[in-house]
Amino acid sequence: MHCYRSHTCADLRPAHVGETVRLSGWVHRVRDHGGLLFIDLRDHYGLTQIVVDPESPAFQAAETVRSEWVIRIDGTVKARTPETVNTKLPTGEVEIFAREIEVLSQSKELPLPVFGEQEYPEDVRLKYRFLDLRRDTLHKNIVRRTQIIAAMRRRMTETGFTEFSTPILTASSPEGARDFLVPSRIHQGKFYALPQAPQQYKQLIMMSGFDRYFQIAPCFRDEDPRADRLPGEFYQLDLEMSFVEQEDIFQTMEPVIRGIFEDFADGKPVSQTFRRIPYAEAIRKYGSDKPDLRNPIEMQAVTEHFAGSGFKVFAGMIAKDPAVEIWAIPAKTGGSRAFCDRMNAWAQGEGQPGLGYIFWRDEAGALGGAGPLAKNIGEERTEAIRTQLGLEAGDACFFVAGVPKTFAAFAGAARTRVGEELNLVDRERFELAWIIDFPFYEWDEENKKVDFAHNPFSMPQGGIEALESQEPLSLKAYQYDIVCNGFEIASGGIRNQLPETMVKAFEIAGYSRADVEERFGALYRAFQYGAPPHGGMAAGVDRIVMLLCGVKNLREITMFPMNQQAFDLLMNAPSEASNPQLRDLGIRVAPPAPKA
Amino acid sequence: MHCYRSHTCADLRPAHVGETVRLSGWVHRVRDHGGLLFIDLRDHYGLTQIVVDPESPAFQAAETVRSEWVIRIDGTVKARTPETVNTKLPTGEVEIFAREIEVLSQSKELPLPVFGEQEYPEDVRLKYRFLDLRRDTLHKNIVRRTQIIAAMRRRMTETGFTEFSTPILTASSPEGARDFLVPSRIHQGKFYALPQAPQQYKQLIMMSGFDRYFQIAPCFRDEDPRADRLPGEFYQLDLEMSFVEQEDIFQTMEPVIRGIFEDFADGKPVSQTFRRIPYAEAIRKYGSDKPDLRNPIEMQAVTEHFAGSGFKVFAGMIAKDPAVEIWAIPAKTGGSRAFCDRMNAWAQGEGQPGLGYIFWRDEAGALGGAGPLAKNIGEERTEAIRTQLGLEAGDACFFVAGVPKTFAAFAGAARTRVGEELNLVDRERFELAWIIDFPFYEWDEENKKVDFAHNPFSMPQGGIEALESQEPLSLKAYQYDIVCNGFEIASGGIRNQLPETMVKAFEIAGYSRADVEERFGALYRAFQYGAPPHGGMAAGVDRIVMLLCGVKNLREITMFPMNQQAFDLLMNAPSEASNPQLRDLGIRVAPPAPKA
Repeated sequence: MHCYRSHTCADLRPAHVGETVRLSGWVHRVRDHGGLLFIDLRDHYGLTQIVVDPESPAFQAAETVRSEWVIRIDGTVKARTPETVNTKLPTGEVEIFAREIEVLSQSKELPLPVFGEQEYPEDVRLKYRFLDLRRDTLHKNIVRRTQIIAAMRRRMTETGFTEFSTPILTASSPEGARDFLVPSRIHQGKFYALPQAPQQYKQLIMMSGFDRYFQIAPCFRDEDPRADRLPGEFYQLDLEMSFVEQEDIFQTMEPVIRGIFEDFADGKPVSQTFRRIPYAEAIRKYGSDKPDLRNPIEMQAVTEHFAGSGFKVFAGMIAKDPAVEIWAIPAKTGGSRAFCDRMNAWAQGEGQPGLGYIFWRDEAGALGGAGPLAKNIGEERTEAIRTQLGLEAGDACFFVAGVPKTFAAFAGAARTRVGEELNLVDRERFELAWIIDFPFYEWDEENKKVDFAHNPFSMPQGGIEALESQEPLSLKAYQYDIVCNGFEIASGGIRNQLPETMVKAFEIAGYSRADVEERFGALYRAFQYGAPPHGGMAAGVDRIVMLLCGVKNLREITMFPMNQQAFDLLMNAPSEASNPQLRDLGIRVAPPAPKA
Repeated sequence: MHCYRSHTCADLRPAHVGETVRLSGWVHRVRDHGGLLFIDLRDHYGLTQIVVDPESPAFQAAETVRSEWVIRIDGTVKARTPETVNTKLPTGEVEIFAREIEVLSQSKELPLPVFGEQEYPEDVRLKYRFLDLRRDTLHKNIVRRTQIIAAMRRRMTETGFTEFSTPILTASSPEGARDFLVPSRIHQGKFYALPQAPQQYKQLIMMSGFDRYFQIAPCFRDEDPRADRLPGEFYQLDLEMSFVEQEDIFQTMEPVIRGIFEDFADGKPVSQTFRRIPYAEAIRKYGSDKPDLRNPIEMQAVTEHFAGSGFKVFAGMIAKDPAVEIWAIPAKTGGSRAFCDRMNAWAQGEGQPGLGYIFWRDEAGALGGAGPLAKNIGEERTEAIRTQLGLEAGDACFFVAGVPKTFAAFAGAARTRVGEELNLVDRERFELAWIIDFPFYEWDEENKKVDFAHNPFSMPQGGIEALESQEPLSLKAYQYDIVCNGFEIASGGIRNQLPETMVKAFEIAGYSRADVEERFGALYRAFQYGAPPHGGMAAGVDRIVMLLCGVKNLREITMFPMNQQAFDLLMNAPSEASNPQLRDLGIRVAPPAPKA
């Protein structure tokens, strides 16, 4: 017999009754029931109940074992009596009567318990991550994460993609977030950088004549702590294809992403066809380019109903500036003064002057709008708004006013709030959609110039002709996101592989040809030597895993995370370097800046 | 029809004759045959011949295209005449008569040609890696690399392993090679390190209650340039299992490694069962712990035949020091004075005083040994040596003398040389073996102390009792390598998971308990809380790919390598950091050291 186990702790079934078996694992829990000792023995695979009676030669050893000791037990499989069967456990129909117990490794008193999974402070959980990871929920989340990533790999491979690894010690990337730098020992005074994403490499792979690249790619951004991003590293499902246009990416990747969600949705519905929502429409209807489409609320402009109306605040704004619009956030079932006032108070808490509303009620058989706005604009306009939005008695509507780009985000937040407060959001599904037609440029108010709205490597719709003839801020890019339940889970584009178009696009954003050559040398050089049309995208592995595990904190799906201050409490990193190390690298630690 | 292609350049067959097709790709080669233009069009998948006749509306465009331009062609599939069929090409039975050609992207004059694959200086190849990678051999090697890694993943998954990623920004590891450091911005003056290997993490994963971990793991060592290792990063197939002993690792991993080799051996034989060769035996027989077992030569000690003999040099050494041995390197078919003298000259070139030899010849029907040594020791001893080694007329034997550990490496090199010179090595197979029973400690001559021979985390054979009772240098470890054709391709061990055994093992090597706590804090801490017996190994991905691609330079199987000076000519890395970057990180570049 194997020296540690004949079966795992998840293997044994009634068919094994009578067999002599050997199991090894952690002592999950010990209970003493009238002289009989019950040990729940746990390994990676499952849990099995061990029984030790006082007659057993193992009894003396069993009396000494404590939680999280590692033991080996030999014994005989017995059927449990019907009333003691544990239907929640795959092994719950049997138990092992132990004949021998060997302690393989003891445990000191536990700083956090594995059994029971009480809440524990994060610093304890991170310092003793090896105990935290034994806890059932986190253990299962981590396994699920690995399965999701394996499913990504399998589906990408089945779709004709090949996985390539790109370098991790590479060049500083002048765009985007802050780089992590790595001092070079051989070239003192110079630094490698860790990649923020393999963007340039994957395009170079296409330039190198490969096709359908993908990678579960580690990415590194030295960003300040954010709730939805761990400090340091994160993973992308990164991909690129040659000889494609936007529609090809959609046709190729929609089944992959849908399939991954379906594999792990536990039966929750997943969008069978992804809606395609232009960026401008997303902002107008949802106040966000990552709308939660489980929320059925769609906003509408109702400007005309307020123009020249008796509600002077809105009417005055409209009269003064033709760019002003009034957006309505319909709130089915929200038609009570109490709810409307609660929303108004919420808006004030968000720093807004308030949130105007109308609600409709049935009074003595007559449907009518109520609230100050309804009074001010009168019955006819109130009814026109109700009709446009398809509302009924018992419903409400909230209004935001101004120049849309200044209030769209707040309107989106109000839409979300209304949907959640009124339970209009069906949480038990995954609503996936493409957001398309992103603007190519945006106005950089700080530097008073046009800048790239997103990825400078994207192809502008209309190509160089559009760059030369259209107003830059009106240009759209072949650039798209996938959103799910209010989160951006992927982003991509068709790339601008024509050197002259690239130079023109950068010129409009204020960069010279020399800038392009200097900042994106490899890519610019590669485009000169036969560049295939290409495009791709990158999906956020961590975000997808969070959605499919139903958790809100990245630490619940990450094996060895740093804390929010970018410190690794388990490994004690970062730490001080030795003087010889610094000397080797030709760098010095600067004295701390004087405190002001 | 798709805007770029209806088929890839590898798709078309006689069954497509008559169809209108669209292809896109790179112009591999253009030939003008009596007014007809032939374009070999290439994409990632293959090559298709395009024909443009002067009547075609595409002719004018075809006349302008040059090598490596990217074009789209529309045309009709025609069968080639029997005499023009190209049997080397999967598409060689057809050609496309082009009706339309669109230039998608032009190319400047090429700094290195893609077609023909002439040798080119490495700096050009690396700077224009995107062109180099289009060349057939390198392109195929890179694809093969991805397939080998995919096969590793598939076989590991089928064997019950789960892939986990471990952190890349982690703690400096005090043992082993030099770390790459990453300055922390948030914790100024402190540094992360890139992992030299996920050794501690994979053991922590076992401590965390998981089982059968693997990872295609990026590893980082800041080493000086070496021929067989690229600067910077490399990949390991890293794995670990719980509740195992050494035999389990062998039983589990031998089929995986054998399978990977068989998948890509192109029919060459692969060892069906891996021999298990104790370290001491490998040194004795092959003069190396990574012997090339395709070389049939096995060395033997022949000390007794020289003790007290007429060859005074050897006899004197033997008499003076009981540790002295004489090893024989039998050389089947090497029995000529010319060959023996050539070997002798080679040995002198290696800095040795020479290489004694005997060769046997059949003279007038009598078998006899020849050469100075044979004369000195006489016929009887010469014959005894011949009999022991099983040599015959036409064979030779070389001799090295001294204390074995001082000459074993040279003896191994001589064995290799003899085998290769005499063509005794069967190059067309993969000979895989386990090297086992490595010494646990070795003598550190520089610091005059006992130190770990290999991995300090390995379990000494005999456990703490052996540590307490045996002479340290006589201890063996549960530590093993896999070797193939003269290269170490994997290395592993059963780990020492018992804290007291760990402390004792380090104590013998001169480290206190406090040292262990400080240097391996996470692991030492984890071992206190229920540590399962565990072990694993790591296989060198790059080395395995090199063997299976039949190349000797890592750059031939690496997509974007740095040069030998750790400089990335494509991306221009490392490069100078900006002052704001350095200020953010709280570091300064030290002024260059004054020249002596």
